[in-house]
Amino acid sequence: MNVVFMLISTILVWLMVPGIAVFYSGFVPHKDVTRILFDSFLMFGLAGILWIAVGFPIVFEGDHFGIIGNFHHLFLSGIDLSSTYGTTKLPTSVYLLFQMMFAILTPALFLGAVASRVRIRFIILFVTLWSLLIYYPLAHIVWSSTGFLAKMGVLDFAGGTVIHINAGITALILAITLREPYKYNNEQAKGNPLWILMGTVLLWLGWYGFNAGSALDVSFQTINAFFTTTVAACASLITWIGLEQIFKHKVTLSGICTGSICGLVGITPGTGYVTIFGSVIIGIISAVGSYYFMNYLKYQLHLNDYLDIFGCHGISGIIGSICVGLFATKSVNSNVITNGLLYGGGLKQLGLQLFGVIFTIAFVSIFGIIIVQVLKKLFKDDVGIRNLELV
Amino acid sequence: MNVVFMLISTILVWLMVPGIAVFYSGFVPHKDVTRILFDSFLMFGLAGILWIAVGFPIVFEGDHFGIIGNFHHLFLSGIDLSSTYGTTKLPTSVYLLFQMMFAILTPALFLGAVASRVRIRFIILFVTLWSLLIYYPLAHIVWSSTGFLAKMGVLDFAGGTVIHINAGITALILAITLREPYKYNNEQAKGNPLWILMGTVLLWLGWYGFNAGSALDVSFQTINAFFTTTVAACASLITWIGLEQIFKHKVTLSGICTGSICGLVGITPGTGYVTIFGSVIIGIISAVGSYYFMNYLKYQLHLNDYLDIFGCHGISGIIGSICVGLFATKSVNSNVITNGLLYGGGLKQLGLQLFGVIFTIAFVSIFGIIIVQVLKKLFKDDVGIRNLELV
Amino acid sequence: MNVVFMLISTILVWLMVPGIAVFYSGFVPHKDVTRILFDSFLMFGLAGILWIAVGFPIVFEGDHFGIIGNFHHLFLSGIDLSSTYGTTKLPTSVYLLFQMMFAILTPALFLGAVASRVRIRFIILFVTLWSLLIYYPLAHIVWSSTGFLAKMGVLDFAGGTVIHINAGITALILAITLREPYKYNNEQAKGNPLWILMGTVLLWLGWYGFNAGSALDVSFQTINAFFTTTVAACASLITWIGLEQIFKHKVTLSGICTGSICGLVGITPGTGYVTIFGSVIIGIISAVGSYYFMNYLKYQLHLNDYLDIFGCHGISGIIGSICVGLFATKSVNSNVITNGLLYGGGLKQLGLQLFGVIFTIAFVSIFGIIIVQVLKKLFKDDVGIRNLELV
Repeated sequence: MNVVFMLISTILVWLMVPGIAVFYSGFVPHKDVTRILFDSFLMFGLAGILWIAVGFPIVFEGDHFGIIGNFHHLFLSGIDLSSTYGTTKLPTSVYLLFQMMFAILTPALFLGAVASRVRIRFIILFVTLWSLLIYYPLAHIVWSSTGFLAKMGVLDFAGGTVIHINAGITALILAITLREPYKYNNEQAKGNPLWILMGTVLLWLGWYGFNAGSALDVSFQTINAFFTTTVAACASLITWIGLEQIFKHKVTLSGICTGSICGLVGITPGTGYVTIFGSVIIGIISAVGSYYFMNYLKYQLHLNDYLDIFGCHGISGIIGSICVGLFATKSVNSNVITNGLLYGGGLKQLGLQLFGVIFTIAFVSIFGIIIVQVLKKLFKDDVGIRNLELV
Repeated sequence: MNVVFMLISTILVWLMVPGIAVFYSGFVPHKDVTRILFDSFLMFGLAGILWIAVGFPIVFEGDHFGIIGNFHHLFLSGIDLSSTYGTTKLPTSVYLLFQMMFAILTPALFLGAVASRVRIRFIILFVTLWSLLIYYPLAHIVWSSTGFLAKMGVLDFAGGTVIHINAGITALILAITLREPYKYNNEQAKGNPLWILMGTVLLWLGWYGFNAGSALDVSFQTINAFFTTTVAACASLITWIGLEQIFKHKVTLSGICTGSICGLVGITPGTGYVTIFGSVIIGIISAVGSYYFMNYLKYQLHLNDYLDIFGCHGISGIIGSICVGLFATKSVNSNVITNGLLYGGGLKQLGLQLFGVIFTIAFVSIFGIIIVQVLKKLFKDDVGIRNLELV
Repeated sequence: MNVVFMLISTILVWLMVPGIAVFYSGFVPHKDVTRILFDSFLMFGLAGILWIAVGFPIVFEGDHFGIIGNFHHLFLSGIDLSSTYGTTKLPTSVYLLFQMMFAILTPALFLGAVASRVRIRFIILFVTLWSLLIYYPLAHIVWSSTGFLAKMGVLDFAGGTVIHINAGITALILAITLREPYKYNNEQAKGNPLWILMGTVLLWLGWYGFNAGSALDVSFQTINAFFTTTVAACASLITWIGLEQIFKHKVTLSGICTGSICGLVGITPGTGYVTIFGSVIIGIISAVGSYYFMNYLKYQLHLNDYLDIFGCHGISGIIGSICVGLFATKSVNSNVITNGLLYGGGLKQLGLQLFGVIFTIAFVSIFGIIIVQVLKKLFKDDVGIRNLELV
């Protein structure tokens, strides 16, 4: 049963890769559609093969300083794929495949930020270095039982830090280092409603595998994750529509879709730790936070957050990760050591979550900027149709 | 196993909500596409949250006169979501989630009838009242073990009455109360073939969760539902193509898609009660009935059945519900108390099914008209770009 | 567990029928889109009903000379659908449904070759005769325990010969017998990127059901099939992009999609017999072989392989079937009697696979040409907008 459930979850997360590509394609000028799709699908070949050859072995086998695993099993050498992995009830191969889809999805989330502005050779090198220096360590730190954030007690059920904050920050770094950033124009604002919807459908659909699958098992947590995922998305989308009605006096399809996705991002870190009630509140707060950022704050900060990747995945990812410190409860999941603030556990878990968020932002920012700068030197400003430059 | 199967079925029914939106979008003028998609997706936030807060507690907990449950558990208070629900083998939360998707899907089915003709505030109020006064009572009456049609022995495996006849009649009421109804024009007739197909794909796909999932279990009935669903759709689509060839001397993609969906609607009430042979005949009769209505009867009756929502869901829903009285057999499902007419059970089950159909039509018509009239008064004829009016 | 897994696999293969239609629709001129979609969807009614009435009974019940089953069970008469089928752990009905989707998919694969060039009556007769004379015997020969290739020891896990080589050869026969073949023009070359991607997504997604489902069970082979399917697709797509970069100095979305599909075709016959390493190599070789055929060989041979159906399904199907003779290993699947050449088993399995490939090509070619010639006589050259003619 576990194996069937996890293979299906893997397929569902797989679907999110074309899902995000199709979603972004609904917002970009027609000439950029092919490139957005290409870049995302390329990740199957690039981030996928890299995960099997290098990623899984160094993330989930062994440990060095709680930051990374060991390098003895590159190309899966010496790993018995059919034996049970760690404390899970899953064959190692199934766990590897499920995790593989996250390693493919995360770069697909942030690549929308550059679309056709940079050369493919830049994308290949950037994603390779980002995987090695950012994603693999972060996945080890948060998800491996020996990772230092995991050992501290920072909770991230399905990837608020490793996936969403990471993708949001990386997208922001890429967007602001583009010499000629995307302009917001009418064509973009209008978009293609059917593809925006189809993208949202594939993402929401895939999120069931993403969140419920992260239970790695069919248990009460799995059902709770399924339920809270549904509720947070529903609450967030209706909140978003309410905000649009109040502040803009009109409602939009892109709003209802973006609202759904922000709710899904927001619930991701807490989906296996919070109650139905908690998920309603997290959905609402995620919508409010991302709405405020996308419609006001980003203009005040002069951030060119093209496609609102940071506004959605970054902001709602941060909100959701912090909310775990408010809403996590042992009554949902016995892995919760200290209840959240609103469940009588005091400030401890909230402090841990804040630390996890700040660490993730700092870690991704520092290594992300380093990688961009190194590639800029390496390519002598010739990596794209438009070159890269730090503002 | 049951839980995994039911969560997957829930996801599949979830898919039908965007599925019907995409299907309709293939038939409407370009300017209405966004609105059709918006209205459907809005149901996740509106009908979804309403279901959790009010719907499930009053449909499936307690009983008053066989018509509705009790009001003690609003907002799920006092419901133990992790305990087994009733005679099912499912946690209450899983049963709630599966049923939630039907409560979201049904309004999405009929909202195509108004598309961008009415204001969103009308849609919000209409769907809220329709849920409270029509859908929740009807779901209790037919599906709750204490519902009076259920106790009489009316059979509706997956929702012929509660969902399809209901949606068909409601769509008809909405369509005929529009002051300026849609005109059939060339643009509509042509449609967008790829989106019509994608909509059909999502609907058919989702129907496996809809019909097989309604077994609430993995059993012989589940496989039978899967099989009869497949066969009815196949038989109906080839019948439809034959009818087009005979009476119009041309075949169409919209015909093959509509034919499939009519077969799926037709088999819905009987999918867990009839044999493979029964499903072939039900598929054929559904196609013939809906084809005749859509191409002849609706013009003779001057019914403005825009998007053929009544022609498909209403007509094939009625045919399928009555056919249960012909084809139901104990050999497939021991819940069948009296065999259908063609299996030697006499007229009893047929009479019950006819009663169920007539009751549903009357119930939905009466309350549907009342709701529309009340909203018309309330909004002083200002509910839409074009106002509502009873013809 | 098995039943749930197989029903899901059935749904996934179901999705490949619209998947291939949508994929092809991305490459054809706009006026042919509707027809491509229609022809594929028609197969549900035609090949689907034919499978239940005739196909399953004569393929999987009884045996005559290792070539075909017996004719005692037409229209499923006398078949107990709820009893376990053969040595599987599945109810006969579930096995029938899973196999049904292959009988529907295979004609959908080759019908792209004629699109709107022939009349629908030709398609109906062609598919009927092709099913009876080619598909049913071949399925019996390869997959039935009494089929003569199966008994010889030819291995075909999920359908390299029966489905892909068969579809490729049939497409080639149809393409070269069109009097006025499709011209390669700019419109086709450009295509519609979003539908090409969606088609690829549906195909890849469905392939998990196709390959992992062919284990007919949830076992180590199932996980191995899932894993090798993923890896072969990833390896093939990145190889294809590399070939495009090296030989054309540009990369394309249609290339990355075609590359994925060729990898999926290539791994199909060996997915349950080869290791992860084997699947990487098979993915790479499939990409190289199909790339070479599509870009050079087909022009040298003056083959009008419209939509590259032979180039993809034929070539990669042949490569994959032969590779089983190189990479099959008992360590993955105890049904492997003799290891492949590279696993120390000598030339025996390679010889068997070569024989299987040559037999399939000959069998399909001979009967395919006969059917086309007979239909040409029958219709007196009036079967299409453009008539059929053997070059």
